[in-house]
Amino acid sequence: MSQQIIPKPLGRLIQDFCKLPGIGEKTASRLALNILRRPQAEAKELAAALAQLHNSIQLCSCCFTFSENDPCAICGNPKREASLICVVEQPGDLLAIEKAGNYAGHYHILHGVLSPMDGIGPAEIKVKELEARINSGTIEEVFIATSSTVPGEATASFLIDFLKKKPIRLTRLACGIPMGMDIKYADKHTLARAIEGRSETR
Amino acid sequence: MSQQIIPKPLGRLIQDFCKLPGIGEKTASRLALNILRRPQAEAKELAAALAQLHNSIQLCSCCFTFSENDPCAICGNPKREASLICVVEQPGDLLAIEKAGNYAGHYHILHGVLSPMDGIGPAEIKVKELEARINSGTIEEVFIATSSTVPGEATASFLIDFLKKKPIRLTRLACGIPMGMDIKYADKHTLARAIEGRSETR
Repeated sequence: MSQQIIPKPLGRLIQDFCKLPGIGEKTASRLALNILRRPQAEAKELAAALAQLHNSIQLCSCCFTFSENDPCAICGNPKREASLICVVEQPGDLLAIEKAGNYAGHYHILHGVLSPMDGIGPAEIKVKELEARINSGTIEEVFIATSSTVPGEATASFLIDFLKKKPIRLTRLACGIPMGMDIKYADKHTLARAIEGRSETR
Repeated sequence: MSQQIIPKPLGRLIQDFCKLPGIGEKTASRLALNILRRPQAEAKELAAALAQLHNSIQLCSCCFTFSENDPCAICGNPKREASLICVVEQPGDLLAIEKAGNYAGHYHILHGVLSPMDGIGPAEIKVKELEARINSGTIEEVFIATSSTVPGEATASFLIDFLKKKPIRLTRLACGIPMGMDIKYADKHTLARAIEGRSETR
């Protein structure tokens, strides 16, 4: 298709949307055309939200989540258990755990996972900052909640090995059958982990 | 989850993304967090593309597609067949047909489909503009390419009825089995249309 047919400002927006994760050319076109069909005020609002995004958000100097304030709303909340730290890959994982609604401890955001192929070792993610928090002496439990993907598992294994000599309790997110799932549709690896991690009935 | 945990500028962007079609809260969060993790320059670029989008794009006064110039690149191209008009619902449909690469006529964008439940009748879409183009006398064929959805079919039926007395050839996009699809997976309505529309072998 001749590039002429797509107006340049529309093509530019489509290209920009294509850079976002999970947005291919078709979705990008659909979004851009939808925005074009709607009032200009909505596009301006979205533009303003994007332009201001980085300005007032920083990393919490304690847990490294995105926050407007330092310390963040969680690290600065005296009602949360400061002796318990949940280690996650990204700020989005923190939001997911907060939504679950039954975790009242603090967090530590690694900002990545170990990935030797991409040159990401322990020095590239917030591991020494985690060690410093543990060395401060107030931490009793480190709860590792990396994803159950290959790099997530590798990162968890590394952390377990790295922290095993510390005088703390090391725990991990349970792996098993998702709620509401029929056992016969679970993949064998998930089922194996669910069997391995089976718990006593009350 | 307490609203405090999501920084306000991030929450605002998530809300804005949620207004786009096919973007739910999870996708919106994923996009917004991804943008936050990347350099601010990229967010600014996307913001600028959005802010400028409506400024230089208008509707072509002939076919009503989005264009920087009037007439658009297609209506203004003397190499395209001006006697053939393809009628589509939205500018995105024009782009899809252009990608197919074997259509060399002009277009007419309806900017909607008939939907009596939503109060959208012939006066709300560009039907009288289509009639005016036909009445100008240079049109030989009107090729209706609305979607094969219920409102798309209803709009096509309306147009066929509305235009049948005009001295033009009225054609429609073929409906049938998608390329590469196994017949046994096609739904019965598609199959019925494919049988009805079967063509002579050479």
